[in-house]
Amino acid sequence: MLGECLDRTREKKPLAHNITNYVTVNDVANSVLAVGASPIMSDDEAEVEEITSICDCLNVNIGTLNSRTIRSMFLAAKKAEELGHKTLLDPVGAGASALRTKTAIELSRKSHFDVIRANISEMKALAEGRGSTRGVDADSSDAVTESNMERAVSFAKNFSCETGSVIAITGAIDIVADAEKAFVIRNGRAEMGRVTGTGCCLSAIACAFIASSPDTLSAAAAAVCAMGLAGEIAWSAMREGDGNAAYRTRIIDALFNMTGSALDKGARYETR
Amino acid sequence: MLGECLDRTREKKPLAHNITNYVTVNDVANSVLAVGASPIMSDDEAEVEEITSICDCLNVNIGTLNSRTIRSMFLAAKKAEELGHKTLLDPVGAGASALRTKTAIELSRKSHFDVIRANISEMKALAEGRGSTRGVDADSSDAVTESNMERAVSFAKNFSCETGSVIAITGAIDIVADAEKAFVIRNGRAEMGRVTGTGCCLSAIACAFIASSPDTLSAAAAAVCAMGLAGEIAWSAMREGDGNAAYRTRIIDALFNMTGSALDKGARYETR
Amino acid sequence: MLGECLDRTREKKPLAHNITNYVTVNDVANSVLAVGASPIMSDDEAEVEEITSICDCLNVNIGTLNSRTIRSMFLAAKKAEELGHKTLLDPVGAGASALRTKTAIELSRKSHFDVIRANISEMKALAEGRGSTRGVDADSSDAVTESNMERAVSFAKNFSCETGSVIAITGAIDIVADAEKAFVIRNGRAEMGRVTGTGCCLSAIACAFIASSPDTLSAAAAAVCAMGLAGEIAWSAMREGDGNAAYRTRIIDALFNMTGSALDKGARYETR
Repeated sequence: MLGECLDRTREKKPLAHNITNYVTVNDVANSVLAVGASPIMSDDEAEVEEITSICDCLNVNIGTLNSRTIRSMFLAAKKAEELGHKTLLDPVGAGASALRTKTAIELSRKSHFDVIRANISEMKALAEGRGSTRGVDADSSDAVTESNMERAVSFAKNFSCETGSVIAITGAIDIVADAEKAFVIRNGRAEMGRVTGTGCCLSAIACAFIASSPDTLSAAAAAVCAMGLAGEIAWSAMREGDGNAAYRTRIIDALFNMTGSALDKGARYETR
Repeated sequence: MLGECLDRTREKKPLAHNITNYVTVNDVANSVLAVGASPIMSDDEAEVEEITSICDCLNVNIGTLNSRTIRSMFLAAKKAEELGHKTLLDPVGAGASALRTKTAIELSRKSHFDVIRANISEMKALAEGRGSTRGVDADSSDAVTESNMERAVSFAKNFSCETGSVIAITGAIDIVADAEKAFVIRNGRAEMGRVTGTGCCLSAIACAFIASSPDTLSAAAAAVCAMGLAGEIAWSAMREGDGNAAYRTRIIDALFNMTGSALDKGARYETR
Repeated sequence: MLGECLDRTREKKPLAHNITNYVTVNDVANSVLAVGASPIMSDDEAEVEEITSICDCLNVNIGTLNSRTIRSMFLAAKKAEELGHKTLLDPVGAGASALRTKTAIELSRKSHFDVIRANISEMKALAEGRGSTRGVDADSSDAVTESNMERAVSFAKNFSCETGSVIAITGAIDIVADAEKAFVIRNGRAEMGRVTGTGCCLSAIACAFIASSPDTLSAAAAAVCAMGLAGEIAWSAMREGDGNAAYRTRIIDALFNMTGSALDKGARYETR
């Protein structure tokens, strides 16, 4: 079932507008290409509305936000919403600075995002207006574990109810929820945290997936499973001497080679 | 003959000023290094004229243009022209937004560029002031094929006549032309379109090649053949499990290892 | 002894604020992760003081400086100094433009940096207010060789005395000195110059090392040895067809896999 979301993305080849950070943007572009979509990066206020108009979806990532690009994020998000394009918000580092927290909250209030994808600390900062993010990583005290998972599922469903967005919280255990249903996903490897940008790449492919599917919740869950599975496949291909840089390459390669049926076979999730 | 252009670049080691986008800039730098030249990236109006002055050539790529960097592009292009440096324009996404089309047209009118390198849709947008670019990819209805190739060659020659620039149109079939002579090149692989930035890297190495050769047309054609051949060599080295990210690495590696004689042997072109 | 500096970094996992260039930022982030630290990139004046406050150290790299980010560099450096965080300055391209030379000099005068890491031409530009940098590479006439090494060691010690910073000059022979003691380091390979960003990555890991050690001089020397050793290990792993792009990946991988005892075994230095 989730595999279809990948297959549809490869068929539809959506054109994806990304306003994203300069740290991981190259991997984001290659990840989007790996799942069969086409990325375009554009962040100047003089063109973002026009660029978004010719695209199928918009991914807003605040990883290296600045006063100039923040204006572009608001403009693009508003235009994409008007046009009925699918949209995704990745509030990188929300909780780490007032600017990030405030920008992420205002973006999510002024425009509707179909999906919000973040780690648990960022998502809490977004929901509560403050947070204890460790830079761009989740605070370990926030981590979703087997013992607090029920609470995290409730939080995700409630926050989805409040925002109208599908909430995708990623970490050792991932939760992707709308107001009524949650996918609890156990794909992925801890070593993915040693590669910069796996979260950014996930957000970008999730945006391409939701642009290609009528079912946003399933498409977002499919992207989370796909990225986690890619991390597993890539890790199993690691050789003597390989490290996080080779792993980075192999993760994108695993996305490139993944079929819908392989995703269906490898996806490990339950619904609640 | 074209191989000499690569050999000369390795000998002369030109210092290349690049004002380019942040998506593919790292690959651009490593590609320039792979062919024996030295890249410097600088895009602030307070220093671009000075930086261009100490360099041998200037590559202007509008892939993630913004109001600040656009000013720098005009300043650097003007200064490079005054100094007689070789210059190349890559109008990424011309046709996708008014800002891109307008900026590319004005750049090409206010300064002379020795080479303009683009896909067919971008080049048409530049020539006609409007276009139907699919983001940063060529519109399939524009594609140069065996059946419309004569027309594309005429377009390239005419546009070269009008602009005084060598016109390099890349796609499944590449055309590199001045007003009188066109190289029709058949190197490359379709899979290169699944790696972000192969066009940007080509523009950057073409800029280094023309800075190292008295014959701009041949040097630009040599760069187009070299990048296509690198794509062929890299593809033939792909192994089980490799995808677009490994391909990216192998393409730059193939440039790094390419000799002038290998380029002469592998270049597939005719002249018209 | 130097190996401890790496081990401590892996234990302490410092959070490192980087204001760095967009050319090599992805490799910088993965290098920082490779040695066990966590990077955060942030360059907007509205948040840099707050971001630096939650971090353990600050790395300022002027590689693609602009009017907006220059303001952020000054603000962050001042705040980091106030908080007693370890700081490092990488004056990329000092000597190549007045803007770079002036910015680097003012940064080093207005704030104290624990380490300044540069090539010999950049360091001379910083010390003398002018220079003959070849873009972002050292001018060959400046190169530290066996015959002029004593003079270079004196220069480094004197400049350390003047600035109060540990001075790390890297090239074929590296010198890391405070006012009284210098490490002369012979790790590394010339081929590292064909990969963009090895200097930037070195600066970033040196910043993480000094944040994890009470002995700044040794920690900076350890980082220089570690990066050089990674270049040696990576080169020995090169296979048929590999080039500078594969080398780039292998260098970061070698950092990822390096242990403190391997560093102790592989470090090649003397002290003067």
